[in-house]
Formats: sequence, C-alpha cells, structure tokens
Amino acid sequence: MNRPDLNRDIPVLDWTPHLAERTSHMRSSAIRELLKVTQDPEVISFAGGLPAPDFFPLRDIEEACKFVLREEGAQAMQYSATEGYPPLKEYLANTMHKYGVPSKAHNVLLTNGSQQALDLLGKVFINPGDYVITGSPTYLGAIQAWNAYQARYHTVNLDDDGMVVDELEGAYEKVVKESGNPPSFIYVLPNFHNPGGTTLPLERREKLAEIATKLDIPVVEDDPYGQLRYEGEDILPICTLIPERTIYLGTFSKTLTPGLRLGWIVCPESLMLRFVQAKQGCDLHTGTFAQHIASDICQRGLLKPHIKQLCAVYKERRDTMLDALAEFWPDGCSWTHPEGGLFLWARVPESIDTTIFFQDALKEKVAYVPGVNFYPNADGGRNAMRLNFSYSTPELIVEGIRRLGMALKNKLD
Amino acid sequence: MNRPDLNRDIPVLDWTPHLAERTSHMRSSAIRELLKVTQDPEVISFAGGLPAPDFFPLRDIEEACKFVLREEGAQAMQYSATEGYPPLKEYLANTMHKYGVPSKAHNVLLTNGSQQALDLLGKVFINPGDYVITGSPTYLGAIQAWNAYQARYHTVNLDDDGMVVDELEGAYEKVVKESGNPPSFIYVLPNFHNPGGTTLPLERREKLAEIATKLDIPVVEDDPYGQLRYEGEDILPICTLIPERTIYLGTFSKTLTPGLRLGWIVCPESLMLRFVQAKQGCDLHTGTFAQHIASDICQRGLLKPHIKQLCAVYKERRDTMLDALAEFWPDGCSWTHPEGGLFLWARVPESIDTTIFFQDALKEKVAYVPGVNFYPNADGGRNAMRLNFSYSTPELIVEGIRRLGMALKNKLD
Repeated sequence: MNRPDLNRDIPVLDWTPHLAERTSHMRSSAIRELLKVTQDPEVISFAGGLPAPDFFPLRDIEEACKFVLREEGAQAMQYSATEGYPPLKEYLANTMHKYGVPSKAHNVLLTNGSQQALDLLGKVFINPGDYVITGSPTYLGAIQAWNAYQARYHTVNLDDDGMVVDELEGAYEKVVKESGNPPSFIYVLPNFHNPGGTTLPLERREKLAEIATKLDIPVVEDDPYGQLRYEGEDILPICTLIPERTIYLGTFSKTLTPGLRLGWIVCPESLMLRFVQAKQGCDLHTGTFAQHIASDICQRGLLKPHIKQLCAVYKERRDTMLDALAEFWPDGCSWTHPEGGLFLWARVPESIDTTIFFQDALKEKVAYVPGVNFYPNADGGRNAMRLNFSYSTPELIVEGIRRLGMALKNKLD
Repeated sequence: MNRPDLNRDIPVLDWTPHLAERTSHMRSSAIRELLKVTQDPEVISFAGGLPAPDFFPLRDIEEACKFVLREEGAQAMQYSATEGYPPLKEYLANTMHKYGVPSKAHNVLLTNGSQQALDLLGKVFINPGDYVITGSPTYLGAIQAWNAYQARYHTVNLDDDGMVVDELEGAYEKVVKESGNPPSFIYVLPNFHNPGGTTLPLERREKLAEIATKLDIPVVEDDPYGQLRYEGEDILPICTLIPERTIYLGTFSKTLTPGLRLGWIVCPESLMLRFVQAKQGCDLHTGTFAQHIASDICQRGLLKPHIKQLCAVYKERRDTMLDALAEFWPDGCSWTHPEGGLFLWARVPESIDTTIFFQDALKEKVAYVPGVNFYPNADGGRNAMRLNFSYSTPELIVEGIRRLGMALKNKLD
C-alpha cells in the first residue's frame, strides 16, 4: 500500500448544496456554546445542569463493573435487544408502580439518555411544520431535538405553579387555525421544571389530563428530576391520570450518573413498536454494559439510599442559594422556590437584559444562562436567568450569588 | 398521594392519526426479528453478525474500569463534549494515519455505535424522496436508518470484486431523471462487504473516486471490518483518495466489543459542525464512561494485540467454513472468499428460494439470513444467503454447514 503524503492540504468542498433542508433548522445548543466560555476553573458556574461530581457513587459502580464483567461479561459486552436489558426494564416498571402507573416491563424502552427519547419523539410524531405546544420557558434540549424535525412551537405561559394549563385550549385552536393540523403533542415538565424550578399542582395536572383527552392530543411528560424532591410530597404523575395518551420520560443522569447515558420511555404497548423501530434505525440499542451496571446497582438496592444522600446534599445547596439571594440581591429581583431538582429561575429589574449582563457577570467570574435561551420563539426571558444549584459547593454558591448581587447593584446604580 | 388501582385496564388509543408520515416507511429489522426465532440454544446460527463472545477482552476491560473510575471517575461519569473524549479522538486520528488519511482529532466524532453514524448521515443529507446509491446487496442497518428519512435507493450490482463502479454514472443519470435531484451520496462497504464478503480492488476505488469527483457526489465509506484482515494487504481507503468528499465510518464493535456502543465518523472539518449539531439533538454525547474505557485500552496498547488474536481466531473459522462448504455442499452452489470480516455470501441453485428454504434449515437447527433481505428494493438475492463465521466455534461451523448441505441435497432431489 502506498502511503500518501499526510501533510497535503485537503481541498475544501462546499457542502451546502448537498445538505438536507432540515439542517437549516439545526443550531448548536446555546448553553453548550456558553459552557465553553465558562470552562475557566476560576469561574463559579451556575450555568450548566451538571450533577455534583463529588457524589457520583464511584465505589458502587466499580463493584458493579467487577460483578458484571465476571458473572455476565460475555452478555454485557455483546449486542443486545433494542428494547433494553430485561431485568432493568422490570426494575423500572416496578419503580414506576410507586407512582401508581400500571406499567409493565413491555411498556419500558431504554434510551441513550433522555435526550434520545426526545429525538425519538420527534421522529415518531413530528412532520415538518407541525406544532408542539410547550410552556415558555421550556427545556432547551427538547427544542434542539425537534428543530431537526422542522417543528414549530406554540407556547403557553408559565407562572410560579408551572404551565398555565387554562391557556391550552386557546393554543390548540390557534395551532389548528395556523397550520390546519392539530399539534403533535403537549410537552410538559411537571416536577421542578427546567429552567423554571416550578412544580405543577395536582389540580393543574387533572385539568391538563382533561383537556388533552377532550382535544385528543398526546402528552409528553418529561420527568428527569422527579426523584430529587427536597420538601413536600410527591404529586401523581400525568401518566397515572391518562396512561393511554402519555409518553413518560425518565433518566438515570440525575440520580446515578450522566456518563452512562441511560434514560427511558414509558408508553402504551400499542405505541412501543414505533419507538423500537425508530431506535433500531438510530443506534440498534442502548449500551449493554451501561445497562448491566445500572441494573446491578438497582437490584442490590443501592440506588435508593444514594438518591436519599443526593437529596440531602442538593437541599442544602438549594437552601444556601435561596438564603444568599435574599441576603445579597437588590430590591426588584425575585426567584422561584423549587421543591426539588437542580435549578431556580431568577428575575431581575426590567432595565437589565440578562444576555448583556452576562458579560458583567463573567467579569466577576460568575456564569448563568440568560433566560431568553429557554424561549422557543425567543419572545421572553430578557430579564430572567436560570441558576443551577447542584454543581457548586455551598461556599461557592454564597460567593457566586454575592458577586452577582454586587454586579446587579452596580448595573442599577 | 392517592395510589390508583394498578390492576385497571389502560384504555387503548388509536395512535395512527398522531404519527408522523415518516413512520409509514419504518420497519423492524428483518434480521432482528429472525434472530428471535433462532434464539433456541440448539440452533447453530450463521444468521447474526455477532463477534465471538469467548474472545471479549474482559480482563483488560475490568482493568480499564478500575483505572478509569479511580483516576478519572468524576470526569468519566459526567456529561461530556458532543464531539467525543479528546484523547480517544486523538488516538483514532493517529490510527487513521496508518491508512494515509490526513485526519486530525477535529475530524473525528464519536458515535453511539456505527449505526448512529448512519442515522446522522440520514439526518444531515437526506430529504424525503432523495435517492441514495448503494450496491445490491448492501448492509441492512443502513437501509433501516435511511428509511426513517424517506430515502429511496438506486442500486448498482456487486460482483466478486464488490461494487461494479462502472454502473455508477448510469445510476446517477437515472436518479437525476427520476427525481430531478442528484443522489444524496454513494454508500460503499469497501472491505469484506456485509453481506457480500467482497473487497473492492484499488482500481475500482480509484475509479469510484474519479466518478464521485466528476459528478460532485459525497461518498460514505462504511468500514466496520477493515482491521479484520486474514490475508492479502490493506488497500487504500477511499477517504485517502478523496478526503474532501468522503465520510468514513469506523467502529469498536467488531474489534473491542459491541456492548460499549462506540463508533466514529471521520469527515472534513467543514462538515463536522453539521454532524455535531445533529448529534447534540439526538443524545447530547456518546457514553463518557465507555469512551474512557476504550481510550484506556487503546492508550495502553492492548487493542492491537487483541485484534491480532481475533484475526487468528476468525481466520480459522473462515477457513473451516470454506472447507466445509467445499466438502458438504452440492454442485451448483458457489460462495465468496472473504479476505477478512465476518461474513460470506453463498449462492444456491436457482430452484431453491432461500426464504422458503429457511424453514428446512430451521428443522435441521441451522439458521442464516436469506439473501433478499439485503436488497433495498427486494429485487434480488432469492437464491443466496449470508453466512456468518465469527460467532460459532469451528466444530459447530462444520456441523452446521454439513446439515445445510444435507438439507440442500434433499431439496434438490
């Protein structure tokens, strides 16, 4: 074999005429781009949505790796079923029972993180130009997934109790009027909303279920944080109220670790085959080894105490942030009081645009995500920001909030 | 929280009116359905494309897990860059240099197995109704990935030297005539073709490169088996000849293990951002832990000797199968002589339809994949089958081929 010259220049091709139409709708995640700016270790970052790395259960995972490789290594390293590893599906179905969801293992599909579930939803439900109804603000990753399917968004407002479900019928009518088609689904984050930090009360869930049934729309219930509750009581999931039309999304990223890339879909059996077919084309199946590791940790009963520990750690961090906000931020600011999860949503006086103020914050070596990034139609959030409280230690939280408060006061003077 | 009755029946919803148009093009993989039939442990299966599980380097992987968790656990379990783990990208770029590809780390994107690369190709390149030019037969997983993007297929023939590249210009003209658009790309499996077992000689690669350049079409070079060569010498990859227009796909599934789900794309820098944006929406990033494990094994120099061992094992199995075919199969049969990889392609007399004969084979407790499944337009392969020789031991290979030969003779009598 002749070895060509490695130093030659590769001619540059104009790829534009070769690309699919949908690529013009695809964007890089604003947050991911922003996180690159904040990788300076001196920056106190409230921007990402990262779990606290100091509390990854590394020893449990090492034990699990050893057990899995020695006892079931050949199976754990081989190709496996698209649907997922049966014992893990069984465990998840049983866990869902806690909420009263009548799920069985065949209602569960393991995904490559919850983000893949969002992609599969786009693939199975969204025609180009279709509308999705979301709250605004809403989770950015969902928008990124569905942009690739050329979705459009009709939003309803969020208040301190989450999605204002009374606006749903009006939104439905506008969508039908504008596009001639019903919306693909309603997308809702009921628990400790990202970025809102809000939780949808039972009455709103019941109202939403009633409206979705009346209008015959599927509901996507995205629940990555539901198990991280620091106060109050669990509220019935929407999928318990209307299991026949709800697609529920769960994940191990916030409870175990994100690095294993494990999420799951719970959905009615009559819909499962569509997701399985879509996933086969996407990546054949979710990582076998990762599923065996998670399954081993779950079966040995190690996940629940780990979540309990995490809740204690994150509760302290949340409380520290709430106290620091009250102490250091100027009048005219307000924020949500999340009962769980990783984020709160802070509003600053109207004279401050948080996208511009981001540069002031960076000068003080603090980062957050400007609120406008969470508005699918970029029509709000200019005076708001998302603050993450799971990643930084209490000491850094106090210091970061203090610096932000100082910068806000300087700006207001 | 009230706990609803877990035994209630979930009302069944008709999901059809809610589904996206593209779902009508999505099918379950015929092979995966077929593998379910053949899970009887008494069946000798030449059907799957599974690596030999007895040779997974479980001890090396256990060592790697331990090292990674102890030395870089917090990083290996956290969210990570969409592009992939930098040291692994670096290693892969350097490995590609072996072939003379002037790739750098920024030309490499880690994917959730090679299948995800096929999905990303569909997302980035295929508009509904667009044509892809493939050989026929061709890899089934690619068809499954691209059906979800509503691709159509124009095929050129395969002979014992792989894709008949002289047919490409005619195929291009027909595609333009039929659809008004150029094809999205040419899809080629140059080394130890799945299912054909054929290898494209250098002259054909050069001709293909010339034609692709003349017609201005991108080339997708899918090379899952390239490192598993049992005889002869490496041939320059197409991406070395025309790096500016080739998207090269590699994978760890056949060299390390499939259960880690690790593949990669090598492409020009000007195209990389598109794949990164598409992948962000699909699953944020490839499993961090899996990448760290693979990287550790590669950096410690353990992959190369492992591949050397695999080549010895698979060469023996291939030779055993070739010898058994010559000994046990009736006149009128023929088969390819693969220089590497996992598969060979066998043709039986015209009176035998391999889809029907599959039932005869199952009665003898042997399984294969009927050839028609590898024809995107189902217009060939009725007297052919794909035989895998990597999964079964030499003893089982002899026995399985003997039984198939017997069944063929019975059928011909």
